[in-house]
Amino acid sequence: MADRALPPPGVPGMTIADVDTPALLLDLDAFEHNLDTLDRSLAGRSIRVRPHAKSHKCPDIARIQLQRGAVGVCCQKVSEAEALADAGIGDIMISNEVIGATKLARLAALAMCARVSVLADAAEGIDALQLAARTVGAHIDVLVEIDVGAGRCGAQPGAAAATLAQHIADQPNLHFRGIHAYHGGAQHLRTPAEREQAIAAATALVTTTLDALAHIGLAAEIVTGAGTGTYLLEASGSVYNEIQPGSYVFMDADYGRNLDAGGAPLRTFRHSLFVLTTVMSRPTASRAVVDAGLKAHSIDSGLPLVADLPGARYSRASDEHGVIELDAGQALPLGTKIRLIPGHCDPTVNLHDWLVCVRKGIVEAVWPVAGRGAFY
Amino acid sequence: MADRALPPPGVPGMTIADVDTPALLLDLDAFEHNLDTLDRSLAGRSIRVRPHAKSHKCPDIARIQLQRGAVGVCCQKVSEAEALADAGIGDIMISNEVIGATKLARLAALAMCARVSVLADAAEGIDALQLAARTVGAHIDVLVEIDVGAGRCGAQPGAAAATLAQHIADQPNLHFRGIHAYHGGAQHLRTPAEREQAIAAATALVTTTLDALAHIGLAAEIVTGAGTGTYLLEASGSVYNEIQPGSYVFMDADYGRNLDAGGAPLRTFRHSLFVLTTVMSRPTASRAVVDAGLKAHSIDSGLPLVADLPGARYSRASDEHGVIELDAGQALPLGTKIRLIPGHCDPTVNLHDWLVCVRKGIVEAVWPVAGRGAFY
Repeated sequence: MADRALPPPGVPGMTIADVDTPALLLDLDAFEHNLDTLDRSLAGRSIRVRPHAKSHKCPDIARIQLQRGAVGVCCQKVSEAEALADAGIGDIMISNEVIGATKLARLAALAMCARVSVLADAAEGIDALQLAARTVGAHIDVLVEIDVGAGRCGAQPGAAAATLAQHIADQPNLHFRGIHAYHGGAQHLRTPAEREQAIAAATALVTTTLDALAHIGLAAEIVTGAGTGTYLLEASGSVYNEIQPGSYVFMDADYGRNLDAGGAPLRTFRHSLFVLTTVMSRPTASRAVVDAGLKAHSIDSGLPLVADLPGARYSRASDEHGVIELDAGQALPLGTKIRLIPGHCDPTVNLHDWLVCVRKGIVEAVWPVAGRGAFY
Repeated sequence: MADRALPPPGVPGMTIADVDTPALLLDLDAFEHNLDTLDRSLAGRSIRVRPHAKSHKCPDIARIQLQRGAVGVCCQKVSEAEALADAGIGDIMISNEVIGATKLARLAALAMCARVSVLADAAEGIDALQLAARTVGAHIDVLVEIDVGAGRCGAQPGAAAATLAQHIADQPNLHFRGIHAYHGGAQHLRTPAEREQAIAAATALVTTTLDALAHIGLAAEIVTGAGTGTYLLEASGSVYNEIQPGSYVFMDADYGRNLDAGGAPLRTFRHSLFVLTTVMSRPTASRAVVDAGLKAHSIDSGLPLVADLPGARYSRASDEHGVIELDAGQALPLGTKIRLIPGHCDPTVNLHDWLVCVRKGIVEAVWPVAGRGAFY
């Protein structure tokens, strides 16, 4: 908000029952379990971890990730990187193209005070990066993004990508650092076989690109990609040397639908992120209305799940309301606070100014979502 | 954000091409057309207008609505009402139940410095309101919400609602003011016949409730409801005496699918709200990627439409990207700024800190979305 920050919905020492709603809760035990699980799953592998901060937008979480050995963080936008750099995070990859004079000027300024890398997928974008860097005397690390199946941004793998790498290498204020090969579409493929197939195909396209680079005498120091759904696949191969999972710290209802080899929901990571909401109306025996709707969680990947209340189903969201269908006779008195598991963690976090960190029912800390709304 | 407000994406005098993206644009000509259209459509009718501020969350817009004769505004949350009251808006109906001690204490405090009304649909809620009001010596106006078909909050119409009204009237610190009978579900029924039928049914339930009130010697000073999709129906009857349209100032892609009697899209109001976005990647001849995804507009009611570019289709949103499919050979160079018509205005506005007001391509003002994130 422009002039007036909203107060945090809770303060340390409070019980969950006293936290105002809607509030974004972080269950610290589950969060730490997720951090431990990622670390354990990568033990003995020589892979660098650069977690994606677009999921949490929170310097406190970024610092914990760095303390555990992350080489830096990823961001998606310049303003998001600024919010983290302001809080002392010193090595940030903007895993995205940056287009537009205003953004580029800010990026170049940021590169003067933090280690910043950025992606490019077009010669015109590289020229604009060079101009912005030269203007302030900055030096910026640049990776070529290739499209390995996500069908979003990215140059064609192989020779086209190598040509762009050469163009970067030719710029006096830019350094060619490597290849960005993130397969977003693979993260939510439901079966392990589908995910393996997608990452195998992505890896083949990276290899083609590395060969094309070698052909013109260039090497990719960094080959990065991977998200929470596939990171073990990239980490297990010999092509990627950096991974950037983000959602693993939180999980969400959509990630919870990914399956293991036996066809059961994958439970590698636990749900640590919840939207706390209050029952604000009990119009009928089977309907409860809660105070968390579209402005408190994002339904782009499906409706939230109701935690702790078997049989209860969040069936409809409007701006500020959620309708919960109950089993006949299920008790849920007016004023009760319940937890929702959001459908999609990233855009849900972006709706909140504060992350209320709880352990065993007590608020332990309140962390600002410093990058909330930082989409420039 | 907690510590650090994002700067506005543009400043007065700038051309649209220089506004940073994503940005929320308000086309002032279309906005004023919409204000005029509402006024004209109600000329000669003795209906009070209390526009809903949950759509815009913007004191500048609320002030313009009041200058044009609105009797006050509606809000959906206490913190949203606080943001508007802080900016000098003096008569606010919280068209929602308020449950929870923290919120009630704030509501009672707000009622000491602004005229505030609120809804109730349960005796327990009324008791809690009375306690909070008595604690600080406040007096609060209360309306009984009845469910007229939306299937969300609200008491049963008729005797049950009248019993609640009596319970309000019995409280020393509360005043029974009337009946809140908003039919949310009717707003987006596509044909005029469906909307008429829904509001006729709602009106009958209001009448039943007014009869039940009369039976116990109570009168509803205010009978309020209606949104942008149906307000002329409520305003044309003799039962409602106050209406609360919100989206009419902006419109959105979903409202744009409502039809007129001839089966053509209703064009009473114009699209005044846009998300400005930059083409940040042109990976193929038929695909453009823009920098406005799920964190810049809400897709709960469908994907946004691309304005000004016939044939172009926003086909997929991820957190910070939108994929636009183009007709073969359609030119859309890297760096071009284009306008999207958001799927749903209210939750889209809530993602932005600033409303960039433009007229004929030039920024005329930048208004803070003071109630952004105010969901407590």
